[in-house]
Amino acid sequence: MASSAIETDGQEILDLEKNRQAEMSQWVLNAPEPPSLWRELMDSARETVLPRGKRFPYLKDKDGLSKTVISVLQAMFPIFSWCRHYNATKLRNDLLAGLTLASLCIPQSIGYATLAKLDPQYGLYTSVIPPLIYAVMGTSRDIAIGPVAVVSLLMSSMVPKLEDPEANPIAYRNLVLTTTFFAGIFQAAFGLFRLGFLVDFLSHAAIVGFVSGAAIVIGLQQMKGLLGIAHFTNKTDVISVMQAIWRSVHQYWNPHNFILGCSFLSFIKLTRFVGKRNRKLFWLPATAPLISVVLSTLLVYLTRADKHGEATAVGRSFASIKGYHINGNQEMVAFGFMNILGSFTSCYVATGSFSRSAVNFSAGCETAMSNIVMAITVIISLELFTRLLYFTPIAVLSAIILSALPGLVDPHEAYYIWKVDKLDFLVCIGAFFGVLFASVEIGLLAAVIISFVKIIIFSIRPGTEELGRLPGTDIFCDVNQYPMAVKNSKALIIRVKSGLLCFANANFVKEKIMKWATEEEENDSQGKRTVQVVILDMSNLMNIDMSGIASLLELQNNLASGGMELAITNPKWQVIHKLRLANFVTKMGGRVFLTVGEAVDACLGAKMAAV
Amino acid sequence: MASSAIETDGQEILDLEKNRQAEMSQWVLNAPEPPSLWRELMDSARETVLPRGKRFPYLKDKDGLSKTVISVLQAMFPIFSWCRHYNATKLRNDLLAGLTLASLCIPQSIGYATLAKLDPQYGLYTSVIPPLIYAVMGTSRDIAIGPVAVVSLLMSSMVPKLEDPEANPIAYRNLVLTTTFFAGIFQAAFGLFRLGFLVDFLSHAAIVGFVSGAAIVIGLQQMKGLLGIAHFTNKTDVISVMQAIWRSVHQYWNPHNFILGCSFLSFIKLTRFVGKRNRKLFWLPATAPLISVVLSTLLVYLTRADKHGEATAVGRSFASIKGYHINGNQEMVAFGFMNILGSFTSCYVATGSFSRSAVNFSAGCETAMSNIVMAITVIISLELFTRLLYFTPIAVLSAIILSALPGLVDPHEAYYIWKVDKLDFLVCIGAFFGVLFASVEIGLLAAVIISFVKIIIFSIRPGTEELGRLPGTDIFCDVNQYPMAVKNSKALIIRVKSGLLCFANANFVKEKIMKWATEEEENDSQGKRTVQVVILDMSNLMNIDMSGIASLLELQNNLASGGMELAITNPKWQVIHKLRLANFVTKMGGRVFLTVGEAVDACLGAKMAAV
Repeated sequence: MASSAIETDGQEILDLEKNRQAEMSQWVLNAPEPPSLWRELMDSARETVLPRGKRFPYLKDKDGLSKTVISVLQAMFPIFSWCRHYNATKLRNDLLAGLTLASLCIPQSIGYATLAKLDPQYGLYTSVIPPLIYAVMGTSRDIAIGPVAVVSLLMSSMVPKLEDPEANPIAYRNLVLTTTFFAGIFQAAFGLFRLGFLVDFLSHAAIVGFVSGAAIVIGLQQMKGLLGIAHFTNKTDVISVMQAIWRSVHQYWNPHNFILGCSFLSFIKLTRFVGKRNRKLFWLPATAPLISVVLSTLLVYLTRADKHGEATAVGRSFASIKGYHINGNQEMVAFGFMNILGSFTSCYVATGSFSRSAVNFSAGCETAMSNIVMAITVIISLELFTRLLYFTPIAVLSAIILSALPGLVDPHEAYYIWKVDKLDFLVCIGAFFGVLFASVEIGLLAAVIISFVKIIIFSIRPGTEELGRLPGTDIFCDVNQYPMAVKNSKALIIRVKSGLLCFANANFVKEKIMKWATEEEENDSQGKRTVQVVILDMSNLMNIDMSGIASLLELQNNLASGGMELAITNPKWQVIHKLRLANFVTKMGGRVFLTVGEAVDACLGAKMAAV
Repeated sequence: MASSAIETDGQEILDLEKNRQAEMSQWVLNAPEPPSLWRELMDSARETVLPRGKRFPYLKDKDGLSKTVISVLQAMFPIFSWCRHYNATKLRNDLLAGLTLASLCIPQSIGYATLAKLDPQYGLYTSVIPPLIYAVMGTSRDIAIGPVAVVSLLMSSMVPKLEDPEANPIAYRNLVLTTTFFAGIFQAAFGLFRLGFLVDFLSHAAIVGFVSGAAIVIGLQQMKGLLGIAHFTNKTDVISVMQAIWRSVHQYWNPHNFILGCSFLSFIKLTRFVGKRNRKLFWLPATAPLISVVLSTLLVYLTRADKHGEATAVGRSFASIKGYHINGNQEMVAFGFMNILGSFTSCYVATGSFSRSAVNFSAGCETAMSNIVMAITVIISLELFTRLLYFTPIAVLSAIILSALPGLVDPHEAYYIWKVDKLDFLVCIGAFFGVLFASVEIGLLAAVIISFVKIIIFSIRPGTEELGRLPGTDIFCDVNQYPMAVKNSKALIIRVKSGLLCFANANFVKEKIMKWATEEEENDSQGKRTVQVVILDMSNLMNIDMSGIASLLELQNNLASGGMELAITNPKWQVIHKLRLANFVTKMGGRVFLTVGEAVDACLGAKMAAV
């Protein structure tokens, strides 16, 4: 009696369990239809292009036109938001920060303009108009706007291919201004159409490699100024530059220049060391370049040293492209407008400078007003000192640039990338050597191409992994990642190590599974192992294409002819939808399950019952 | 007493549960190190290049040299395996199949040679030597070897760019033979180095589109023969061909030709219809082209119609590239050798013909002997009838080619692709219109480029999905795919819909999750919902790069500053390895779990205890 009751109970539980399994399989099979391709495209376009969050809440507002206009203006020109709460304390802080910034900015701007093969005043112009526009339109309060080194290097390596800066300086300058105009147009368009994400396509590793390479190239080019070489190469790759230096050193170089440059280089390095030891003296390294310029200019002016050696114009340390991180699309709009308007006022491409932004921050800036203060200071110095720039020795400007380069070459970061991700390191090295031995464009191109090839290789690698049950659970995991997982002796449970089963890997995966399933003498711990069921865990697969479906069908047929069953588990939305459309589910006898555990129970249970 | 015992029990169970969770977290965190990049490269190279399964078991054999040699010969030349069991019955079947095959093959070979702008006899040569070599080296018994239409079209669209077939037919022919030689070299090399998988890179959808487009192009070109047009364009795109037809029709065309061609086209179509209705009459459609050629040739020969109109050489229906499926690398070696040797004996590129293979199969072939029979029949007819080919009217050959084209344009398959996979349909359409309106190469290029762009887009699409618990289970699924899944009111459970978290999508994913987590007024069924924990299910992610890790770190910091916790679950081998190397696990407080359920319990449990 009791035993029969237990049996009935057992039977009921079994039935319940079966119903439960059937219900869950139905959940998988009867999923609602996923959004159509068109719908998905529209959604992702909307998400990409339209503002995140509520950017125009005032449009719902019915309080009248004036309020709407104010809201639009506040969104477009953040200055209206912060200037209402502006006060004397903030002004004092901004004034201090702006003056510190200007003292670093003036020599840097002159240096970068020379790097871009422009006259020094164009660097100063670029430190006036763009910061003023950014102060009105930008959202960040710390960022310091002006010319930066990598952009200057890009200009000097690209534009001279179209127009020779020495033969025809005015045409060259006009071409640089046109480039600036179009750079602004693209930035504004990217910002307005919310395409800022395109900037992400240059990966972190690529930027590390590119900036390190560019720093070395720039450093080598400074040898021209430091050694006082008159004729130098226009190419940017290391080999050409080294050859040019080698040739010049054997022919003619200027020891006065070299000694002057090295002295000021030591002076700047020393102030930086002092500034690092004592945080309160942050202004010392920030003003050291200006002090160097003023001192050396006075020296040359008073001693008329320009009669003996070289003189005139340009250089200084240099801000990393790392700072070039666009904070949202409004930033990009601001950058775009400042470059468009800048190009009409003789400015070349301006952007956020990493090193100057850090100084701005340490100097305690409160709002974008510090940029305005800096711009005004630069205007005044433009008025007063432009003629004196004639006497600034190039060696000092080279020393200023050289002093900042070690911070850009980042072997620690490169080692970290090597440690964590070997392929990312390849991207980094590709960009580095591309810039170093070929050209700036080839370095960038190499980085982008390696990055995308990496994505393709990862996506279509035809890897598979065998799953086993974690002891004491119903969880199935990769037996290599979890060595404690126990393989099933009758079911081969396989997961594809790729997010896509497509034309490029489907055939390979199919053959691999077939080989696995038909290998007869697998030396398992229990001795021989006969595979009755192949369970394909699809939880990884985001999508599948026609070739993938065809391969699955072939796999199913091949397995069936070998007396084995194929079951699939946990297909994702798009995958189950396509498998249903292609009638694969019916063709394989409906063996679709939500979890691997269920599939094992159902398939092996059915086999047992059949025996 | 009892209640305290229960409490103790409850406490014990809770402790056990906690220990269990801790143990499982340790399993995740202490996974063994995954194979290094170098090791993986080596493994995948070995798997790709080295033979699957045991291809040379005899190398372990110690039975002496003779046995080894025999085994090697059997692996290289499968004919040694099957010819030992060959008998009279098999010979009778092969003889019948071979003769049927020859009757279809002769007019086809002549037609394809004309399509390739070669003299008709080269098509016949190609039906002699390659089948003989394949019979010795190939592994398939059904496949019929010889010239096929798509390859002929490729020849006629590529080679004339280098050498004009009309101005300099001998140089053109030599160039075609050189092309054949190098095609053979590449095939043999791919086969020997086990690179057959490269063939997969042309996806099914691309082939459907390409073949359909090529069929239409070939069909239009047959208008030249059907209308008896003397001067025709060399271009293959639809617009040029249509223009050439239009121009010719207004100037000069031959109605006799047209009537002759249309009559035989109707005759072939009729026999095909009869053959389909009555399966026993399969030989009727197979021999109809030969009957047409013989009848029309006799007609022209007896009436001397060639004095009035056009005559001489070449055509017939046409076998699909669908048949061009390489069954393993030994097949590729066989194809390579037959083309290399073929090129020395005036054959152009031969491959497996789909339509003829089907005829071979229906005719009941037993072994590759049917190919030998066919080759011998072709040799005999070459000896006897080559001179008569002069009288074969081109219109009939065009009719033969035209009669086979509708089978290649596959709107059903295209509709099926459209139904199942919209993006694959784009690949198909790209190949189709590329061939139709540009050129054969551009069609192929378009298909390959669209296919790879598709892979990139799928791999880096920055989609995310929210997970909910399936009622009555501990399984968490996409709430859109499984509408019955219940969202957690305090934990936001998110899964990335991509196999890679990399530079191209990491920033976007991070922003999307942040937006999701901070959206305050989510209208859940329980009214307002406050997110305390964000659980990121990583089970999809095969890999992560430096930018992905940086984004996760930023996400963790942003969430922390908003008072939320980040937990990750089920990271795959490479992912957890890199996260550990980058110290991310420590930085996020070790909230790494194996399953979402555990993460929910652990995080919300801890929050509760803290309250």
